[in-house]
Amino acid sequence: MDLVVLEEIKRLKYRYLRCVDTKDWSGLADTLTVDATADYGTPTYGGPLHFEGREPLVAFLGENLGPGMVTTHFATHPEIEVDGGEAAGRWAFQDTVIAVRHRVVITGAAFYEDRYRLDDDGRWRIAHTGYERTYEAVFSLDDMPSFRLTANRWPVEQVPNREG
Amino acid sequence: MDLVVLEEIKRLKYRYLRCVDTKDWSGLADTLTVDATADYGTPTYGGPLHFEGREPLVAFLGENLGPGMVTTHFATHPEIEVDGGEAAGRWAFQDTVIAVRHRVVITGAAFYEDRYRLDDDGRWRIAHTGYERTYEAVFSLDDMPSFRLTANRWPVEQVPNREG
Amino acid sequence: MDLVVLEEIKRLKYRYLRCVDTKDWSGLADTLTVDATADYGTPTYGGPLHFEGREPLVAFLGENLGPGMVTTHFATHPEIEVDGGEAAGRWAFQDTVIAVRHRVVITGAAFYEDRYRLDDDGRWRIAHTGYERTYEAVFSLDDMPSFRLTANRWPVEQVPNREG
Repeated sequence: MDLVVLEEIKRLKYRYLRCVDTKDWSGLADTLTVDATADYGTPTYGGPLHFEGREPLVAFLGENLGPGMVTTHFATHPEIEVDGGEAAGRWAFQDTVIAVRHRVVITGAAFYEDRYRLDDDGRWRIAHTGYERTYEAVFSLDDMPSFRLTANRWPVEQVPNREG
Repeated sequence: MDLVVLEEIKRLKYRYLRCVDTKDWSGLADTLTVDATADYGTPTYGGPLHFEGREPLVAFLGENLGPGMVTTHFATHPEIEVDGGEAAGRWAFQDTVIAVRHRVVITGAAFYEDRYRLDDDGRWRIAHTGYERTYEAVFSLDDMPSFRLTANRWPVEQVPNREG
Repeated sequence: MDLVVLEEIKRLKYRYLRCVDTKDWSGLADTLTVDATADYGTPTYGGPLHFEGREPLVAFLGENLGPGMVTTHFATHPEIEVDGGEAAGRWAFQDTVIAVRHRVVITGAAFYEDRYRLDDDGRWRIAHTGYERTYEAVFSLDDMPSFRLTANRWPVEQVPNREG
């Protein structure tokens, strides 16, 4: 068991999730192999999402999780198997998205099944990421009239006009 | 500090929790010693739960957390002490159970106090698991009329008739 | 990469959070350097909170998170860099506070930026802790009339009179 590699892969995953939640799209791209694929088991966009290549993947996230969308993603319970320059990882996962303008909350849990690859520059990157939902739920904040955001790193005033 | 043993015990705990949330009862049994004991500090069933032996423990979970119950269990903050072939572990814990048919949500947080044992086959297993609640709360989804499950790995249609 | 030091620092953080949630204020003090500073990015008290020295920091937490306040703090995704006897750490963070008497819930997520120091007694302690909110939200349990605490480690009967 190569504990240093395990630590590197865990941190790779943490950086990926941090870049999503801080909307650091160039940082996110650097956590993925050029040919990275993704399968997100969320029904939010009308059906499971499949991506081939980091460019369309990062572009999609940037367009759909921009300012006005508060996102939190937490992955725990890493079960990682390393085989030379490749690795597979399982994670438990919970996420919450607050669509501030629409006063809608999407929340759920899932299990990730990832693959990682030691890239030519000697750094591990995500070659595939995907999850199967345990559940996903949606509700409107209209059911909770007292709900107020008291802090928001992504104030809705910064939302581009096309979403206005 | 034997970091390989720490990693093995953490993964044992992650496997235990994954088996609970994916309803993999035979996989769950394999994470427990034959004589495993458990103390769950939940008041949901009318008082603290105590089990002696993995067979009644796994049977109880299978009967009470079957299809129709969406469960998510997350354990973080491992503080593990190893002493030869025995170990003790503390974890922070949060869990949410959605009883889909009853439209009831049970959620809470706790601290686990576990004991682990290196079994005769050379694998670590859980010899005791138990938690004390920080809090537990229950509420009805009738208070959130907009709440909808958009994904559910355990569709209620699969619930055995006796719960119908 | 010194994995033993990484494990020690992770456990230091877990102990800090456990002491907060179990209201173990002397245990909490022992996780901090004497000159520890803190910046909590919560607007709950009217503006960001800044502390210099562990004594005022622990005193504030003890006064504001006493019995009657159920708190849960979960830190995951450690990204820790060690440089000799100093270290820096980033964490993802989620917390929920239930002010039982006021029937108010405060919940949110953040990213921690900590600094750690190897103290004169050979133990790592937190020299600085601080977080920036991704979001923070507040709501009243009056919006969820069915919500009931079924377990509470800090029964409100124990609240000192001055808060009564």
